[in-house]
Amino acid sequence: MFPKNAWYVACTRNEFADKPLGRTICGEQVVFFCDAEGQVAAVEDFCPHRGAPLSLGFVRDGRLVCGYHGLVMGRDGKTCSMPCQRVQGFPAIRTYPVVERYGFVWIWVGDKGLADPAKIHHLPWAESSEWAYGGGLYHINCDYRLMIDNLMDLTHETYVHATSIGQQEIEDAVPATKVEGETVITSRRMHGIMPPPFWAAALRYNDLADDLPCDRWQICRFYPPSHVLIDVGVAHAGKGGYDADPRHKASSIVVDFVTPETETTHWYFWGMARNFKPNDLELTERIREGQGRIFSEDREMLERQQRNISAHPQRQLLKLNIDAGGVQARRIIDRAIASERATPPTP
Amino acid sequence: MFPKNAWYVACTRNEFADKPLGRTICGEQVVFFCDAEGQVAAVEDFCPHRGAPLSLGFVRDGRLVCGYHGLVMGRDGKTCSMPCQRVQGFPAIRTYPVVERYGFVWIWVGDKGLADPAKIHHLPWAESSEWAYGGGLYHINCDYRLMIDNLMDLTHETYVHATSIGQQEIEDAVPATKVEGETVITSRRMHGIMPPPFWAAALRYNDLADDLPCDRWQICRFYPPSHVLIDVGVAHAGKGGYDADPRHKASSIVVDFVTPETETTHWYFWGMARNFKPNDLELTERIREGQGRIFSEDREMLERQQRNISAHPQRQLLKLNIDAGGVQARRIIDRAIASERATPPTP
Amino acid sequence: MFPKNAWYVACTRNEFADKPLGRTICGEQVVFFCDAEGQVAAVEDFCPHRGAPLSLGFVRDGRLVCGYHGLVMGRDGKTCSMPCQRVQGFPAIRTYPVVERYGFVWIWVGDKGLADPAKIHHLPWAESSEWAYGGGLYHINCDYRLMIDNLMDLTHETYVHATSIGQQEIEDAVPATKVEGETVITSRRMHGIMPPPFWAAALRYNDLADDLPCDRWQICRFYPPSHVLIDVGVAHAGKGGYDADPRHKASSIVVDFVTPETETTHWYFWGMARNFKPNDLELTERIREGQGRIFSEDREMLERQQRNISAHPQRQLLKLNIDAGGVQARRIIDRAIASERATPPTP
Repeated sequence: MFPKNAWYVACTRNEFADKPLGRTICGEQVVFFCDAEGQVAAVEDFCPHRGAPLSLGFVRDGRLVCGYHGLVMGRDGKTCSMPCQRVQGFPAIRTYPVVERYGFVWIWVGDKGLADPAKIHHLPWAESSEWAYGGGLYHINCDYRLMIDNLMDLTHETYVHATSIGQQEIEDAVPATKVEGETVITSRRMHGIMPPPFWAAALRYNDLADDLPCDRWQICRFYPPSHVLIDVGVAHAGKGGYDADPRHKASSIVVDFVTPETETTHWYFWGMARNFKPNDLELTERIREGQGRIFSEDREMLERQQRNISAHPQRQLLKLNIDAGGVQARRIIDRAIASERATPPTP
Repeated sequence: MFPKNAWYVACTRNEFADKPLGRTICGEQVVFFCDAEGQVAAVEDFCPHRGAPLSLGFVRDGRLVCGYHGLVMGRDGKTCSMPCQRVQGFPAIRTYPVVERYGFVWIWVGDKGLADPAKIHHLPWAESSEWAYGGGLYHINCDYRLMIDNLMDLTHETYVHATSIGQQEIEDAVPATKVEGETVITSRRMHGIMPPPFWAAALRYNDLADDLPCDRWQICRFYPPSHVLIDVGVAHAGKGGYDADPRHKASSIVVDFVTPETETTHWYFWGMARNFKPNDLELTERIREGQGRIFSEDREMLERQQRNISAHPQRQLLKLNIDAGGVQARRIIDRAIASERATPPTP
Repeated sequence: MFPKNAWYVACTRNEFADKPLGRTICGEQVVFFCDAEGQVAAVEDFCPHRGAPLSLGFVRDGRLVCGYHGLVMGRDGKTCSMPCQRVQGFPAIRTYPVVERYGFVWIWVGDKGLADPAKIHHLPWAESSEWAYGGGLYHINCDYRLMIDNLMDLTHETYVHATSIGQQEIEDAVPATKVEGETVITSRRMHGIMPPPFWAAALRYNDLADDLPCDRWQICRFYPPSHVLIDVGVAHAGKGGYDADPRHKASSIVVDFVTPETETTHWYFWGMARNFKPNDLELTERIREGQGRIFSEDREMLERQQRNISAHPQRQLLKLNIDAGGVQARRIIDRAIASERATPPTP
């Protein structure tokens, strides 16, 4: 259950730098490669000759060469050539609109006629030299919507991430959720609290005292089909919190692209964008390692939750105020799916 | 196919000493923990909030705290509290009668109205300071009834345990099986034989000569739902065998609690109770290690037997005299299941 | 989908030298062992007593002894004895015609009345002291027919085995396929090419220069049910190629017996027979190692191809001229299966 007429993050360029990358996205087996112009291309991972995965082959002159018998496949899904064969009559394979933008490859697995790159979610920080980004990719064995729930309800930080970003005060601060068009926003603010370890370190990275009371914020934003971007930070108490002058705060954007692989598995692209010391590569790496460790703590919980839910498909789950972000996000997803089903394909 | 209105061994206290224990018993996913009074408690391993397994959480003040968002669950299956939530309307989860007795936790997964602790199988040796017990737990991928068959027909010792407790004379001694009420008893006696390695060692532990002819006995007793307790031992020949004075024999009770996990897997609690040198902890450990090694020899045979039977569900197996113990035990189990199905639930 | 009225290679004698060998052939679970006359025997791997696999037992006096309770099974599928039991009424288990020939054990899993050893494919080289043979066995997770396709279209060498036997000239040489009765022959000849690494080494083994232009040939022959024997070699250019005097060439026979295990897995017996330096055991081993390395390169491609095809069962694959060998082989297989289904069983 996922929208198909949408741009999802599929991979990053380094993943297909040396050889083609086979990856299943929304149930479609896709192979990604780099064409002769250096542009990313994506076609079905299925050689029309004998069904071998094209991702086991290699790229020559911007075309995929099947590693079994040498069929040469173009980015248009048509066979270019094959040793000693006439290939005009070969059946074409499916191609997928792909766009490289903001450091990611975005794919559209639905109706191609609707695949307008202008619909790719805008990420201003990714275009600014004042920002730095570091992140990674996890494969998670659960429905992508459980991950969205997770990200839209940060109450879990107190329990799942107790030693890094969790703290008791999170659960005492009631979150507020609102829907603005297709965006769901869940906000939580804490005042006069001591920063937990991750944020104490971030204050130090900003050359700020880490032993003073702070104001802390978490502003989670869901955008369809499955992006969650979270403004997070701490400011020395009384300096304005989220709106404080940069001299008094440490803040960043948690970046989450949650791409379905199958109905019960997904690709989780996680990362952090920050606008302090953007050129400090060592700092980027240190933050990335810390975040990677923290986000790996969610895995067991999410995967076991999936197994519990799969074993009890009839059970109704609760929808509390803290769950409002995930609940509203699912409504938007459900509407998108329903709308897709009601839409005739473009000619 | 297992009776549910019965007390099964589920676990031992040390398994949930540090954190809650999630374990599936008779198809039910259960979490075991210790309440504020130090008593064992068991509820469904499913948080009513979002379906996370409660066994991934922790215990605080005798209550389970969900490791995802902090819901606090009582031993009565009712949510006690949750940060910033009113929990009165939360649906309750299932609870299971549990009793700690004889060093084991016993669970009743059936009709609670019938869960009378007086029905727990009585183990006199577990209450006596003249006896010592050591044992362990194996997870086995076969129907629990194949393990009961195994334990009620010790002919297999000659083949499966040839280097420890097996000996040729076992299969020459025809076993006798009788049914007394709900108990099945299969007995086998050998006279004037040399003790096999395990029993030679046991004689030495009793400060008895290990190079004399002995009389040996195996008296297997099945009790519903799936307990098998086996009187085993050797006495110097002509001293009275099973009835010999303790000065002439080495004997003990093989203890087997066979608890279904699913239709084709089970938890096997094995151990040995002995009434010699009960305070010799090193001896307890040495016997435990030897027994653990022997009982692990059954695993491959049982699991491969299960696969063979699953692949040929229509095949009739033989029921020989040596199989009478298992056959009679299955009759008692079948009657218990049929009786359960015919019984209306208690109000 | 495999013929059952056919002789397949099942195993080699060394595989059941120490203990019985359990192996599934064409969906049948079989145990192989050596009888009192030193002849190979094969019966169902299922003890009629309690369903244990007989392959977990041992052989005594040419009979199988079940490792669970000591039932003794003869090569005729009848129980010979069991400790303290009368076995006359025990149900027999299935037996399979088996013949040891050419260093392999051949099995017939179909209608026994048709199992004529004269139908075993004739291997003249296996009976000649002028030839040597070395080979191995791989278990491959794909339909056995994908392996036949692979072996009947050696175009793949250029891609899958680029560093050993592959070379660009292979794909420039159009293969020719013809059918002679039940035999499919696909031939490819290259002229005046440099030998690839494997063949350069073979020339050296024959004390021939490895840096001269050569003529190379590949003559693949399919015989039902699933044997592929390939004449391969190189001769110094202009000396007559395949027909050249032995003083000018290095040649051998690639031997492939492809035995179905299940519908989507098979046993792949591969090897090479050569008629030069037949007594050089070290050379046999060196060739065997090289060939084993090369043939292992096909595994990932074949197994991933199987997964792709299983995921897209409706997709038609192409049948090009290079595929003609596999296509014709499948026609012969299909006819054999259809004929079997139309034939009433022998009385």
